[in-house]
Amino acid sequence: MKTVTSLDWRKRFAKRTDHMKRTAVRELLKLTAQPGMILFAGGLPAPEFFPIQRAKAAAQRVLTDFGKQALQYRETEGVAELRDWIARRFSCSAHETGRRTGVPPVQHLRTPDTIDRRQALSCEVHGSNTSKCFSGKSHFQLDRSRVVITSGGQQALDLIGRVLLNENDKVAVENPTYLALLSAWRRLGVQFLPVSSDNDGMRVNELEAVLQGRPKLVYSVPTFQNPQGTTLGLERRLQLVELLREYDVGLVEDDPYSELRYSGAAMPTILELDAKQQWSDRQDGNVIYVGTFSKVLMPGLRVGWIIAPEEVIERIVRAKQAADLHTSTLSQHIAWELARDGFLNEHIPLLQRAYRERRDVMVASLEKHFPTETSWTRPDGGMFLMVTLPKAFDAFDALKEALKHHVAFVPGEEFHLQGLGRKTFRLNFSNAQPGLIEEGVKRLGKVLKQMIAR
Amino acid sequence: MKTVTSLDWRKRFAKRTDHMKRTAVRELLKLTAQPGMILFAGGLPAPEFFPIQRAKAAAQRVLTDFGKQALQYRETEGVAELRDWIARRFSCSAHETGRRTGVPPVQHLRTPDTIDRRQALSCEVHGSNTSKCFSGKSHFQLDRSRVVITSGGQQALDLIGRVLLNENDKVAVENPTYLALLSAWRRLGVQFLPVSSDNDGMRVNELEAVLQGRPKLVYSVPTFQNPQGTTLGLERRLQLVELLREYDVGLVEDDPYSELRYSGAAMPTILELDAKQQWSDRQDGNVIYVGTFSKVLMPGLRVGWIIAPEEVIERIVRAKQAADLHTSTLSQHIAWELARDGFLNEHIPLLQRAYRERRDVMVASLEKHFPTETSWTRPDGGMFLMVTLPKAFDAFDALKEALKHHVAFVPGEEFHLQGLGRKTFRLNFSNAQPGLIEEGVKRLGKVLKQMIAR
Repeated sequence: MKTVTSLDWRKRFAKRTDHMKRTAVRELLKLTAQPGMILFAGGLPAPEFFPIQRAKAAAQRVLTDFGKQALQYRETEGVAELRDWIARRFSCSAHETGRRTGVPPVQHLRTPDTIDRRQALSCEVHGSNTSKCFSGKSHFQLDRSRVVITSGGQQALDLIGRVLLNENDKVAVENPTYLALLSAWRRLGVQFLPVSSDNDGMRVNELEAVLQGRPKLVYSVPTFQNPQGTTLGLERRLQLVELLREYDVGLVEDDPYSELRYSGAAMPTILELDAKQQWSDRQDGNVIYVGTFSKVLMPGLRVGWIIAPEEVIERIVRAKQAADLHTSTLSQHIAWELARDGFLNEHIPLLQRAYRERRDVMVASLEKHFPTETSWTRPDGGMFLMVTLPKAFDAFDALKEALKHHVAFVPGEEFHLQGLGRKTFRLNFSNAQPGLIEEGVKRLGKVLKQMIAR
Repeated sequence: MKTVTSLDWRKRFAKRTDHMKRTAVRELLKLTAQPGMILFAGGLPAPEFFPIQRAKAAAQRVLTDFGKQALQYRETEGVAELRDWIARRFSCSAHETGRRTGVPPVQHLRTPDTIDRRQALSCEVHGSNTSKCFSGKSHFQLDRSRVVITSGGQQALDLIGRVLLNENDKVAVENPTYLALLSAWRRLGVQFLPVSSDNDGMRVNELEAVLQGRPKLVYSVPTFQNPQGTTLGLERRLQLVELLREYDVGLVEDDPYSELRYSGAAMPTILELDAKQQWSDRQDGNVIYVGTFSKVLMPGLRVGWIIAPEEVIERIVRAKQAADLHTSTLSQHIAWELARDGFLNEHIPLLQRAYRERRDVMVASLEKHFPTETSWTRPDGGMFLMVTLPKAFDAFDALKEALKHHVAFVPGEEFHLQGLGRKTFRLNFSNAQPGLIEEGVKRLGKVLKQMIAR
């Protein structure tokens, strides 16, 4: 028998895998599995607020009432009742919607005390138990044909890319932007056109110049952005909607965090503004919206959704069929169970209170312990803020030092294009408990002061 | 304000979506949602055997014992304990493995009465409660580094394609083969090289000629194939393993059905034969194996797995990270809970008995009611068999007639390459209850006899 060598698979990988890198940062962050590490690195919700008892009860109800359906193959689009619920939650005349579907209207996520009516365009409020619309030109009405359930927000982004982006297509993104979007779409061979941002979110004036380069899509996390925590202001939102129309370009609005608002005025989604401002008769428009239950319920379910024009939904469904047939039916049913009985509306304020405290502790600790040469963003919600070091410093070096003191964060470079961001890093404030947040920031402050003093 | 038209998304879809077709057959099969339809069309397990009470108990245990972990983000590779369990189940010296991990060894799925020891190469049996190896040259030992959990078998196939296949790459497949594999990989721009098959599975002699065309991969469902229900014989399996080595080519062994054996001798997987025959020291080899809990537990969980050489696993993990971060943690934990406590080993024989009866009823009914001009395969397991009509007939026409009599099946053409299969159709026997199977076959027989008589 001749000498046998096993197949060399490494020579056989597809070209697109060249973009699937493991980075030095990721290797370094493996160290964070050590016990005693204070984790500002990931994007994890606080597990102590997972509604485990409610999840148990929901699992029992789902398996009792829908056992066979909840364990069987289902349509790729997702469980119809959950799609209905999402469509209703994003619609703005819950009066009629609620009645039409025979289900009591759902209270809109934006609680009244966070709505600044002066800032909103013209707010329709149909009594205390119905949706509130920000821009009241017309009703904004969705139904399930505009909704597909995905295996988390990440799959939503992956499917949108697969359906819309060819090699060499251009995509305008905030710089910095969500890391996993860059890694998901980079392997499709697209070219990213960066648009810088400030405390008021993406610089929409700058976007206009970028749109001359004819990107196929704009991608944005307008509210409590990952990694900066900043939010696109209302004026810019309106300007953005105008630009989408003027340049006939589509926008992906990635919106995992907007329910987690701790201060400031609530903002209408770009989805809603686009639909209301432009298409009084056709309500499809230029926006593809991505939502998720990961941050407001629990990420382990892997249930997210896309709201898009019907023709986009149809293609996404075909792509999803080949990608994973459908999202876990059990997960979908549990999400629906927790959403429809009103629990979600009780749970979000609890998260808001807890995370508001953590944000406040982090910001106060930064002010107390960080060297005066550093600066940081001051988010009104979400899970992250971003620190900027003085010019000569590199966040990767700071991470190496910080890990020696058992504190972890993510250097900003990977969120950036054009090699920017080397002197920035992202801090997560949702996962660690308040006492640990102060301790971690204190240690980090010491590390940074020593680096600067050197 | 100038006249506004909404964005025309249809002009913006990626080229790869051209391959994402909705077919006439799919449109026709939408009619099967009507009540009273006898469904031989899908590939659904019988929901009456879903272990709902056990699933309830498992969900409670999981949320009690692992609540925070089971609802949190997790590593892309999958829940470590489930990967360990799968590695152990596919390893052949469960004695040591079981002891090493501190978990009692798991009884191998192949029950002793279905093992034909004469047919197997040389069977190692370590007592009644351990794995049985078919080809005993050496131990076949896996660990979790060779296993990644996927969102069902479909995602496994999608990820394998994304990691290994470039545009214009060639893939050898049985003709006919699994429909959703064709649709998932077709959009990657690959070229399929068909290999015909008979009652003993893929014609491996013919494969040899096809391998001259240098395909990058061979894809096969060797056991109880979808759509034909046929199984690759042992001699051909050994010959296939030789060919893989000789032509230095990789094989994707898609194996959702092999636990569902109702008659005949159990077969070693190609994975095992490849590892044992070739690589006594390096146990990675030429095979990428795809498994799933969908057919033996419940598909709604969407939990499958890939067993592959480590370098392939590593790339697949990177691809999966961008695709959906990870599979539903709750689903993974429930699958593990049902697997590890031995329930799966009680449940599979129950499914075997129930589906054996359905297969027997279907075959007996075919013999009784179908015109003598038709023929069909006689599967030893799985969920499907395939009918061949006389030359002049088209299964699509037969479907249109059958639907009028409230019976549905899938015409064979879509499973085929080169425009073959127009006179074949696939019947599923796992979903309908025995009485309905007989009634459905009777009605179908009548339809076919009328068509032939015309």
